[in-house]
Amino acid sequence: MKKGIIAKVRETVPLIHNITNYVTVNDVANILLACGGSPIMADDAAEVEEITSICGGLCINIGTLNSRTVDSMRKAGKRANALGHTVVLDPVGAGASAFRTDTAKQLLEEIKFTVIRGNVSELKALHGEKSATKGVDADLSDSVTEENLPAAVAFAKELSRKTGAVIAMTGAIDVVADAEKAYVIRNGKPLMSKITGTGCMLSGVTAAFCTANPEDTLDAAAAAVAAMGLCGELAFERLSGADGTGSYRTYIIDAMSNLDDQILEEGRKVESR
Amino acid sequence: MKKGIIAKVRETVPLIHNITNYVTVNDVANILLACGGSPIMADDAAEVEEITSICGGLCINIGTLNSRTVDSMRKAGKRANALGHTVVLDPVGAGASAFRTDTAKQLLEEIKFTVIRGNVSELKALHGEKSATKGVDADLSDSVTEENLPAAVAFAKELSRKTGAVIAMTGAIDVVADAEKAYVIRNGKPLMSKITGTGCMLSGVTAAFCTANPEDTLDAAAAAVAAMGLCGELAFERLSGADGTGSYRTYIIDAMSNLDDQILEEGRKVESR
Amino acid sequence: MKKGIIAKVRETVPLIHNITNYVTVNDVANILLACGGSPIMADDAAEVEEITSICGGLCINIGTLNSRTVDSMRKAGKRANALGHTVVLDPVGAGASAFRTDTAKQLLEEIKFTVIRGNVSELKALHGEKSATKGVDADLSDSVTEENLPAAVAFAKELSRKTGAVIAMTGAIDVVADAEKAYVIRNGKPLMSKITGTGCMLSGVTAAFCTANPEDTLDAAAAAVAAMGLCGELAFERLSGADGTGSYRTYIIDAMSNLDDQILEEGRKVESR
Repeated sequence: MKKGIIAKVRETVPLIHNITNYVTVNDVANILLACGGSPIMADDAAEVEEITSICGGLCINIGTLNSRTVDSMRKAGKRANALGHTVVLDPVGAGASAFRTDTAKQLLEEIKFTVIRGNVSELKALHGEKSATKGVDADLSDSVTEENLPAAVAFAKELSRKTGAVIAMTGAIDVVADAEKAYVIRNGKPLMSKITGTGCMLSGVTAAFCTANPEDTLDAAAAAVAAMGLCGELAFERLSGADGTGSYRTYIIDAMSNLDDQILEEGRKVESR
Repeated sequence: MKKGIIAKVRETVPLIHNITNYVTVNDVANILLACGGSPIMADDAAEVEEITSICGGLCINIGTLNSRTVDSMRKAGKRANALGHTVVLDPVGAGASAFRTDTAKQLLEEIKFTVIRGNVSELKALHGEKSATKGVDADLSDSVTEENLPAAVAFAKELSRKTGAVIAMTGAIDVVADAEKAYVIRNGKPLMSKITGTGCMLSGVTAAFCTANPEDTLDAAAAAVAAMGLCGELAFERLSGADGTGSYRTYIIDAMSNLDDQILEEGRKVESR
Repeated sequence: MKKGIIAKVRETVPLIHNITNYVTVNDVANILLACGGSPIMADDAAEVEEITSICGGLCINIGTLNSRTVDSMRKAGKRANALGHTVVLDPVGAGASAFRTDTAKQLLEEIKFTVIRGNVSELKALHGEKSATKGVDADLSDSVTEENLPAAVAFAKELSRKTGAVIAMTGAIDVVADAEKAYVIRNGKPLMSKITGTGCMLSGVTAAFCTANPEDTLDAAAAAVAAMGLCGELAFERLSGADGTGSYRTYIIDAMSNLDDQILEEGRKVESR
């Protein structure tokens, strides 16, 4: 993996425009600052094109999607594409409602994404049943295990081929892939699923890492995934006494704010496939 | 009180659909996870019926109410009723504006709630002046004290009779009642009122507890109220040195994530009336 | 500076109506409680006039501005003016988009603000290029330094003259001024810029301090600015071990909840100009 990815983030302080949900938005803003980026949240159609123009990257997250912001997402995405910006999609809840699945698919048709970050079921919902390559995810349940890992890698590569985006499929085991190459990442802790927003936070961090490293999208996305998982591990080690998930959330952001390339290099568990 | 209520939550991981305010939504999501549930936030009319259908319970909270989401609340509530789901109402700010009072009353007319969780003045606003039973709350000021406790219990039972919902009236002393029976709960700390969202968090936890214990709504609601108060006590005991309300918020969520039935049984201060 | 400003806040518990962004709203609510005030968040046009009427002060923050809430801001502001309430404007992102700049200017035309709290570039955007006094900020870059401090003070006084509001211009060095007098404040830590919402939180605290001290707006606003900076310092001193920006956010709210006039008097670094 490419070295010095975090240093680039901290040197260039990429400004990331977020159109995101109101559940985890504060954590996303704080972890973007913690990793070395800078966040702007703006979702009104009247200003999203202007706001995204002054940024380096855009992160579109469809959690708490509403009819007002769908149009903002499309406008911002198209403008970001025209400017050659990094654009990340977090299809939160795709597959859980037709509104989210359809919106995510429509965004995929109109916008070229640099990275799509989601869990297995969200990414399967994007892939869609009508695909000629339907067989690819037939063996893939809703979580990635050592057993179905080859199928998961093949699915991620296929989805990357179809969308042109790097795919960051996260869960107990993470797979980050473009059409040709995949990283399998085994950082993280199960307790991360007991705080809201670790996925949303990761999508924001991915946008910052990729914006600061535009020539190395696959490696930057993999570094973001490994970094988030490693922060989950470092935070987990701090838990003691009466600490629980409230402290864990705080410690994860702490860990990200103290992270550098050396810590990441020593702690990441990344394998090429 | 029924035993094993929390164990049921942690075993069944009830999925709770929340239509809630943007002030405390992150805390609600985190405490739902901490208590053993799983949160989904979705408020657009285009998807709420579908989302609530895949959940076990629904929590409607009218803080930061807006005209766009009122319709979503009605749709989700009706669907949840049709499916026999647990439905909790948190009438935040009812009585503070006609918009909130009227919306809360309209929701009460159209939706059958399993539990209504609010403070005295919110619940009095729901009860309404035109009620034939107006006298019931005549002696009840805006906080429950040892002096007006009999009136408070009578009011809660009366409101339960009127609405068909278990009433969880929270404050310095909490009263949880159906038409026949009431629990008086004396857990909690005054400092809890110095962090935002303890009421909203409790409503979410109540939805999870009642969804996981559908045969024991009164006891599950009382357990939720006692659990939240006990977490406030356990968190209060941890405060030291320069700690203040920021740490207190974190410690409350910590305590909920570490809570089990044994801790609750030993710490709850519940009396039947 | 006037003494006893915080005691007044804690005695009178000013109720502050906030129309604010969904990024930092939870922190604003928590720090308002921490400083001794009480927050209400309400942004729907159907209720803002009624809500603001039961409050003592109003804080309008244009972060994540949207077309639905602009009208609410205007309605609430006019009503608050009619009632003689404290009204604070936080023009988040003015200058970053025409929508925000135009909205902020429109609000300034229609509403009389007690205090405007922003950073240099936001306040310059409000001042506008067409002003006859354009020269005032010609030497002022986007941050206040010891070198351009005289220009910064002159600019703040000029903007106060133009708007009738006390100006709280915050950054590495803070300037709080009315048309005649300025305070220069050197509390705070650079790390505060690495957590989201310190500006929004300060605007909320400013609304509470000024509402509780209506005869001393300039001093109350300066006290709020010094208090927020001092909390940043006290929180910074607590950082140890693996602590980072997550803990720092918590410690700042802790510090505010423990603050009193004596701590502020001993810790503030305020100079008159």
